Amino acid sequence: MDFQELQEDIKQNIKYINEYIINNIRIENETLFQACIHLFNAGGKRIRPYIMRTVYSLFKKDNSLITPIASAIEILHTFTLIHDDIMDQDEFRRGFPTVHTKWDENIAILAGDVLHSLVFSIIGQSDFRKEIQTRIMIDFSKTLIKICEGQTMDLQFEKQENVTINEYLKMISLKTGELLALSARTGGIAAEVDEDLINHLSNFGLNYGLAFQIIDDILGIIGEQSKLGKPIGSDLRQGKKTFVIFYALENSSEDEQKILKDILRTHNLSEEKLKKGIEIISKSGAIDTARNLANKYLQSALDNLEKLPSSNGKNNLIQLTKKSLNRKF
Amino acid sequence: MDFQELQEDIKQNIKYINEYIINNIRIENETLFQACIHLFNAGGKRIRPYIMRTVYSLFKKDNSLITPIASAIEILHTFTLIHDDIMDQDEFRRGFPTVHTKWDENIAILAGDVLHSLVFSIIGQSDFRKEIQTRIMIDFSKTLIKICEGQTMDLQFEKQENVTINEYLKMISLKTGELLALSARTGGIAAEVDEDLINHLSNFGLNYGLAFQIIDDILGIIGEQSKLGKPIGSDLRQGKKTFVIFYALENSSEDEQKILKDILRTHNLSEEKLKKGIEIISKSGAIDTARNLANKYLQSALDNLEKLPSSNGKNNLIQLTKKSLNRKF
Repeated sequence: MDFQELQEDIKQNIKYINEYIINNIRIENETLFQACIHLFNAGGKRIRPYIMRTVYSLFKKDNSLITPIASAIEILHTFTLIHDDIMDQDEFRRGFPTVHTKWDENIAILAGDVLHSLVFSIIGQSDFRKEIQTRIMIDFSKTLIKICEGQTMDLQFEKQENVTINEYLKMISLKTGELLALSARTGGIAAEVDEDLINHLSNFGLNYGLAFQIIDDILGIIGEQSKLGKPIGSDLRQGKKTFVIFYALENSSEDEQKILKDILRTHNLSEEKLKKGIEIISKSGAIDTARNLANKYLQSALDNLEKLPSSNGKNNLIQLTKKSLNRKF
Repeated sequence: MDFQELQEDIKQNIKYINEYIINNIRIENETLFQACIHLFNAGGKRIRPYIMRTVYSLFKKDNSLITPIASAIEILHTFTLIHDDIMDQDEFRRGFPTVHTKWDENIAILAGDVLHSLVFSIIGQSDFRKEIQTRIMIDFSKTLIKICEGQTMDLQFEKQENVTINEYLKMISLKTGELLALSARTGGIAAEVDEDLINHLSNFGLNYGLAFQIIDDILGIIGEQSKLGKPIGSDLRQGKKTFVIFYALENSSEDEQKILKDILRTHNLSEEKLKKGIEIISKSGAIDTARNLANKYLQSALDNLEKLPSSNGKNNLIQLTKKSLNRKF
């Protein structure tokens, strides 16, 4: 089992999920319809559905039952992206204009709402028995509420001078980790595996999500354009407060803190100031600490995966987790 | 059965619904929690849950099963109000600052999203058998999508010079009628009455909703402060395009159309211009036509109610429908 096989498997999954999604968005109003499908046409790796379908396939041969639910998790993810882009005033996503940029904020609010509702009608139409369907539905709903809490914390942090590392980790576990935990967990719940295994799946997803986010935060400072398209110091340029920033603020001298705070407030950062910012962050040990933390989460994700029965699917999930340290695909 | 008994019944219903809602919104983040419960604390008649519970009670003695679903429809309604208020930039609702005014647009988007999700976890936790629960869930989801389509049309009309009466009626049937149809229909679906009756319930709700909206449009022009708190010509002052405006635009001379369009674009309307606007609208026959149309819808709502078995609840629904012509409560 090598990386190429994983890539092929992911590609196949994208095809199934996109097909299901495009065939199931039915809206009469043309503008609203276009706004709803816009981000699905902008690419994306469909990692959440991939995890859910792969987990389910470990236990069940026929995965036609899980494909709608896997599509629903991508729809839920996309709805949160559309609303987040409004809140964060991001103009581009995956190289495409965001929904509120291409249309306007009102249409983006409505497109998100439509997709949100669609998630639950898809789950409602699934062919699982009532207990399973109900559990999945409530799990989706509660997770979405957690995501909203995470986004609220993220917005609050923007205005907050001091945020502890623990508060930050809680925020990313709500905003990013919980949905990946749901992706993995739902595969197990739908396949009716035992509760112990469901817990391992959930912990795999959560830790994978945390590792993913922390690595993203590192790349936001030292990343190169070639990886994930992020130029060096992009988060500093945008004044985005992430793990490495909060860690550096907590672990620098008062003078360095002042400089760093000033940099975060500055628009059109000079190359000199940018270099100074990265220097302060590195010196604080933020990058090393973040790397260690990401590794810890990745290891925990892998440990939880170990509990799964041996199979190609399991190997693919292991590959996926390991590769997230070096995200080029 | 008189009006006082209806009022008492509505008051009782408000108590049950508010209690359920407040006990079932569980959010850790304090800001998000306050934003979510804000509009529920701002009063409101809970007409949609009232209709659902009353319909259900016609057929089932114990209405403990329907109360959560009736609360869910109020939560759904409230979520759409929170998002609509952002889009329409309304600063007040029921005399209270709107959510995005009291907090900000981001928190309002998130509060709406949380309530939206809550709707489906409540339905998912209901004790109806799977077929019924699934049907209700899909019905709620599809109705919400229709409401979003209605709101999209409403936003599009603002920028559109010519809107036909039929387009306008379609918009209000999606934006207002469908949710009232759902309220009545769900009471019947949950009580497992026959499909014919479910259709009558749905038609009652739809027609009641249309009548309600058209009367609102009339009051927006000729309403007095004492009724519904609307001063004379309030819709004209706000440049709000409603049935009477579209009708007047369709049925006035070219000169009058020009004056009316100019009035709709004018901020801080003079009393003289306001009077002229109301004159043009009246002369076009818009008010009379709207009254006749509202009466037609009300009559249709009543005809559909006639199909229900005789009971106090039925009489209350008839009273409610008749009283909507003279909305003082």
